[in-house]
Amino acid sequence: MEIFQRQITLRERPRGFHLITSEIAGCLSAISHWKAGMCQVFIQHTSASLTVNENADPTVRIDFETYFNKAVPENDPDYRHDYEGSDDMPAHLKSSLMGASVSIPIQEGKLALGTWQGVYLCEHRNHGGRRRLMITAWGT
Amino acid sequence: MEIFQRQITLRERPRGFHLITSEIAGCLSAISHWKAGMCQVFIQHTSASLTVNENADPTVRIDFETYFNKAVPENDPDYRHDYEGSDDMPAHLKSSLMGASVSIPIQEGKLALGTWQGVYLCEHRNHGGRRRLMITAWGT
Amino acid sequence: MEIFQRQITLRERPRGFHLITSEIAGCLSAISHWKAGMCQVFIQHTSASLTVNENADPTVRIDFETYFNKAVPENDPDYRHDYEGSDDMPAHLKSSLMGASVSIPIQEGKLALGTWQGVYLCEHRNHGGRRRLMITAWGT
Repeated sequence: MEIFQRQITLRERPRGFHLITSEIAGCLSAISHWKAGMCQVFIQHTSASLTVNENADPTVRIDFETYFNKAVPENDPDYRHDYEGSDDMPAHLKSSLMGASVSIPIQEGKLALGTWQGVYLCEHRNHGGRRRLMITAWGT
Repeated sequence: MEIFQRQITLRERPRGFHLITSEIAGCLSAISHWKAGMCQVFIQHTSASLTVNENADPTVRIDFETYFNKAVPENDPDYRHDYEGSDDMPAHLKSSLMGASVSIPIQEGKLALGTWQGVYLCEHRNHGGRRRLMITAWGT
Repeated sequence: MEIFQRQITLRERPRGFHLITSEIAGCLSAISHWKAGMCQVFIQHTSASLTVNENADPTVRIDFETYFNKAVPENDPDYRHDYEGSDDMPAHLKSSLMGASVSIPIQEGKLALGTWQGVYLCEHRNHGGRRRLMITAWGT
């Protein structure tokens, strides 16, 4: 079994949900000879997150932003942690609802995603800046 | 370290939450000699998901369906992605809230679940059809 | 590739969100020579969960408790599973929203968390008791 690890930095994206599948897949050329394995992508931040969802219709990603803004409201007077702005605490909450990592099987050297699956960067801040990802893969 | 990978197809289930622990465990006979390891189960769809929760009382799984239908409403006029029906966009959202995979430790050749834990297939569509799972395990 | 597995028991915590990063890191001295790897922490319960979030300001963890109590209400008359008390079914739901495990890359023998990231025990019961975690790590 081999292991592969690489840190990458994503360019800044606006608040919302963004497909980054090709940026992940582009890191995996070194493991194209593996028969079977696993790839984990971990985001080293607490106000952005990762998920796997629909890769085709951009309105899905718009609806994600609409939904999560309703489900995790800004400016709740009960929030105590608000000194970085109204998008601060909701960003932390959304991050844990989605999760800091995704793990995707590798089959014949490629991410074994379903036909309609892609990896989303979930940017929960208005100005989140660049985001660091750690990509770790293991397999044979 | 060895690796094991197998794709299985689950029969169609009605919308709701369904225990599939035995279907996962049934794939792992080839690794019963492992002392320690990990098993990941990945669903290759974006309108169904996987989680670990209570394995005994069926009313828990009914309450899951009740809760998620309230938390992620159908027919929100703000949804733009609705051409596959009122259960379409909520299914995508619920999928990301639960997640596309579960990872469970393996100890002495078996899934090291707690006494009350089981694996749920979370079927978010009214007619989701059969669902493909990729099971990947690694260990020694 | 080596694998490491160890079960630990966390002391009872009150309902809420608690940093347990040092308890996880404290188990990993045996793997301090690894260049790269992965650490999974799995909670063997269905009414407590794990997540990665902000490690500095305690009000973030208070706001987590406030938010999740609103998002997953107690005493919904539609719940059927309520015989262990009003915190019972909400605890199961919150557990699946957060997830039963976290997976964190290992780099140069240490958890490769971002500067502001820590591991939370999410205790969803009023009296959850001690909680069993299975820590599994693999790497080289």
